[in-house]
Amino acid sequence: MKDEFEFIESITPRQTDQASLVKGIGDDAAVYRGSDEYDEVICVDTMVEGVHFRRDTLTPFQIGKKALAINVSDLAAMGAQPIYYIVSVAASADWKQEELEDVYKGMFDLAQEYKMDLIGGDTVSTPDTLVLTVTVIGRVERNRAVYRHTAKPGDVVFITGYAGRSAAGLDLLFEKGVNGSFSLEEQKLVKAHQEPQPHVKAGRILCQTGVRVSLNDVSDGVASEANELAEASNVRIHIDARHIPIDEAMSSYSREQQLEYVFFGGEDFVLIGTVKEEDFSKVEEFFKEEGLFITKIGHVLSGEGVYLKEENQLTRLEKKGYNHFQKRG
Amino acid sequence: MKDEFEFIESITPRQTDQASLVKGIGDDAAVYRGSDEYDEVICVDTMVEGVHFRRDTLTPFQIGKKALAINVSDLAAMGAQPIYYIVSVAASADWKQEELEDVYKGMFDLAQEYKMDLIGGDTVSTPDTLVLTVTVIGRVERNRAVYRHTAKPGDVVFITGYAGRSAAGLDLLFEKGVNGSFSLEEQKLVKAHQEPQPHVKAGRILCQTGVRVSLNDVSDGVASEANELAEASNVRIHIDARHIPIDEAMSSYSREQQLEYVFFGGEDFVLIGTVKEEDFSKVEEFFKEEGLFITKIGHVLSGEGVYLKEENQLTRLEKKGYNHFQKRG
Repeated sequence: MKDEFEFIESITPRQTDQASLVKGIGDDAAVYRGSDEYDEVICVDTMVEGVHFRRDTLTPFQIGKKALAINVSDLAAMGAQPIYYIVSVAASADWKQEELEDVYKGMFDLAQEYKMDLIGGDTVSTPDTLVLTVTVIGRVERNRAVYRHTAKPGDVVFITGYAGRSAAGLDLLFEKGVNGSFSLEEQKLVKAHQEPQPHVKAGRILCQTGVRVSLNDVSDGVASEANELAEASNVRIHIDARHIPIDEAMSSYSREQQLEYVFFGGEDFVLIGTVKEEDFSKVEEFFKEEGLFITKIGHVLSGEGVYLKEENQLTRLEKKGYNHFQKRG
Repeated sequence: MKDEFEFIESITPRQTDQASLVKGIGDDAAVYRGSDEYDEVICVDTMVEGVHFRRDTLTPFQIGKKALAINVSDLAAMGAQPIYYIVSVAASADWKQEELEDVYKGMFDLAQEYKMDLIGGDTVSTPDTLVLTVTVIGRVERNRAVYRHTAKPGDVVFITGYAGRSAAGLDLLFEKGVNGSFSLEEQKLVKAHQEPQPHVKAGRILCQTGVRVSLNDVSDGVASEANELAEASNVRIHIDARHIPIDEAMSSYSREQQLEYVFFGGEDFVLIGTVKEEDFSKVEEFFKEEGLFITKIGHVLSGEGVYLKEENQLTRLEKKGYNHFQKRG
């Protein structure tokens, strides 16, 4: 049951510096080296046309790039370095060969940043819709993977970038269409939706500091992800509205709208996590050295739930899931 | 972007003897131990409803079991021991929750045989059809993975079981329906189609003998798989029709029909490969010790192509792909 990899191979020259790869594309399986020094981290995500992406807001190139980014972000949230990816494409007849090639090219574009190798996959047909399943494999120094369940009362809550931009960009795409006329700020938000950047370097720094960290990636909005941290760690989280970093590109939005996007938007792929109060400045220093920023946005307490602190009022932030195509207000 | 694993967890108690699994289901990623002693083998296969399986010939349980079997067979063909699996289910609304649970139960049924752990996955919705993507991870002693490209002139060609049964079973299902009245022989063929058994033990023996072996699994029929071996190794293969083992359950079929099923059927998941002439009896001995059989069915020569030798006539066997639902004559 060998599949046709001709066009994949043509756009994915084997990266010969990946010495650990014993064998690449061609057979039905890929073989790679294990190592006593590392733990392996594996993630699988499936994106379905019409459910997770639409062709009127993303090009095939962007669909591919984003499908890989979602998985790479899962690795980043574990502190892992991405190494390999495997792509299963179930495509309907209305997807042209060149569009499918663009999907692979988009993945390749992101993969190159991390020197990831495409080591296998499967191409099959479906009656309709494109179903993209991406598997990524990463590595993290043994026993150093970072989890969600390790937050403790007394920790500070941090975020590694701007949340809310992707959802704002999606609303702009709905409003003006993919070929609409966008201001420079709007273009930035649209780009954040179409080609989100996973925070791999941030995840690696947090893993390598050696201090206790809890971590999650913001794929479903800050409210949902903070709730996941709180639930997994059995703690309560307070988020201070004043400290949430807002991208300048969103400065024309009302405060209410900004926070709506941050908390209930999704697919920003920044990281949210916690670290001991006294370790935060050390972590912040590491980030600065790498030209990155990290912002303290709240505190961990004993108890449960996630609360937004605004002008001395506490409002519970429910774990509302991000609905990809439900128009937000 | 956490998915709901409640019903998976309920049917997949963590196997605590898998010491290498650092962390299981729950987060978006699974972490497991690498090892200097092993190479990792990974395979991904996607099965689409209406393309690779139909609900009128397989139960949801069997769909799940077969989806995992296909992948485990890919590991067997590399000589690897299966360890983990990850399941991505993209299901349409016409799939009931209990049917999806049965899909997982079918996988679990096969996984138990090999003590494989389900370590993650994704459940999403599709507009229609079920798309099942299964990722399996196995291990093989370092540098001992078995490939297709290592056949050499002078080798004998072997097969590790009966081919053709699955296609015969599928034709019976088409003819009589899934609730039809089948003779004992027919039941055996139907079962071979519905719940094929991957040849993991055979693959492990072939890997552990330490002799040079080339290997492939018969997912697309013997003609296609032998051609893959010949192409990958740049050799010519002669298959002797007289030596092909035919299951007694197929004894009522004409010779022509038997060979049609063997060469152009599919999904039998036996292994086909080659080994040096003088090593074959040693390999055969290992198989016997384990209560398995292996049959010499041909020879490797220099040149190209696959030929069937029958009554001193050579007929070229083309690499016809197996079409799952095209009625064969």
